[in-house]
Amino acid sequence: MLYAVFMSASVPPFPASQEPAGEAELLQLGSVGDEPCLRADAARNRAALLEAASRLIAEHGAAGVTMEAVAAAAKVGKGTVFRRFGDRTGLLMALLDHSARKLQADFLGGPPPLGPGAPPLERLRAFGVALLYRSAEQLDLQLAAQPEPARRYAHPSTRALTTHVMVLLRQITPDADCELLAQALLGYLDPALIHHLTSQRGIPLERLEQGWVDLVARVTGTEPPC
Amino acid sequence: MLYAVFMSASVPPFPASQEPAGEAELLQLGSVGDEPCLRADAARNRAALLEAASRLIAEHGAAGVTMEAVAAAAKVGKGTVFRRFGDRTGLLMALLDHSARKLQADFLGGPPPLGPGAPPLERLRAFGVALLYRSAEQLDLQLAAQPEPARRYAHPSTRALTTHVMVLLRQITPDADCELLAQALLGYLDPALIHHLTSQRGIPLERLEQGWVDLVARVTGTEPPC
Repeated sequence: MLYAVFMSASVPPFPASQEPAGEAELLQLGSVGDEPCLRADAARNRAALLEAASRLIAEHGAAGVTMEAVAAAAKVGKGTVFRRFGDRTGLLMALLDHSARKLQADFLGGPPPLGPGAPPLERLRAFGVALLYRSAEQLDLQLAAQPEPARRYAHPSTRALTTHVMVLLRQITPDADCELLAQALLGYLDPALIHHLTSQRGIPLERLEQGWVDLVARVTGTEPPC
Repeated sequence: MLYAVFMSASVPPFPASQEPAGEAELLQLGSVGDEPCLRADAARNRAALLEAASRLIAEHGAAGVTMEAVAAAAKVGKGTVFRRFGDRTGLLMALLDHSARKLQADFLGGPPPLGPGAPPLERLRAFGVALLYRSAEQLDLQLAAQPEPARRYAHPSTRALTTHVMVLLRQITPDADCELLAQALLGYLDPALIHHLTSQRGIPLERLEQGWVDLVARVTGTEPPC
């Protein structure tokens, strides 16, 4: 669902001059679809359902999201919710995709330092911080919708994040094994780890943010920012 | 199930002089139990069942391990397998615990460079390589028995590995946030990631091993070995 941004007029892909390897690679990711193409009323309807589901999660956690509750909150029939998302997992995945597309639009075409225009090292730092806070905000949803172990890293949204980090690393440390370093960096941003460190170990997000900036400096052999 | 080695006569705890912070910290982990204390015949019986289950996994993958198949392979009644392990998940967990205890015995009390006696940097390198190859060997079991996301990092065997890496890091880079760096390093050794990189991306284990040694050097700010 993720690389749809390339086909969307609202989010320009990054200029080829800036990240030549990146775009080619992202397009190679291949079989990631588009958000469904809907008539205007159906699109509004879908947006209202996702909005209602987000509110329910914010209030009651992912456990509070049932097809019935979403239908009631959006004031539509239960059948509409089932027709749109298939089942509860489909609804949770749609919510995550929606948020992943937003983050991707930001790092591919938004303002710097997350988007193009800032040096790659600054973009990498900003990317980790953005992902960290996004995951912390949606932790319950992220954990509920995490794919099973054998498919976790192959999931399109995970692949998209890895590719972005790899593309930035290639510009910072071209001689390194950037695919493996990208995986190591992203391991630090795993929602299940963020959950463990914040909820079970009581570590504040600010320390995790410092930890990310420190990890990036170590992995890239650069000085941490002042 | 993991810190039982401290109570076992066969595996000496590491000398306090070498890793003073480590032992205290490991003991603080607290509520991890012992392998059940059994009469000699029951212990032989349990060992035979685990042995039979390991053989079944090697031949048919984790999917081939049913309570019935294990009973048949070990030539005991099905009731014995249920009494011993509760259910299939209990059996898989017992298999993983058994292997985790072996690895732990090696890194706490085995010969260097994995065990005490080598410099901490060499021990850290050896630890990652050992964990990498162990996970690759038991990938199917590791994936089948991986706890759900919210409990993955809190699991006693995961905590034990984190603590060991943290203890080594404190000796190599005492000024760093060693808990967070330990988590970043262990993210690289996640069985689900090893599965993705080897099976889905076709990356040979040798490259993952080089990647580990390189990552350790970057994270610790040391030179990689020649």
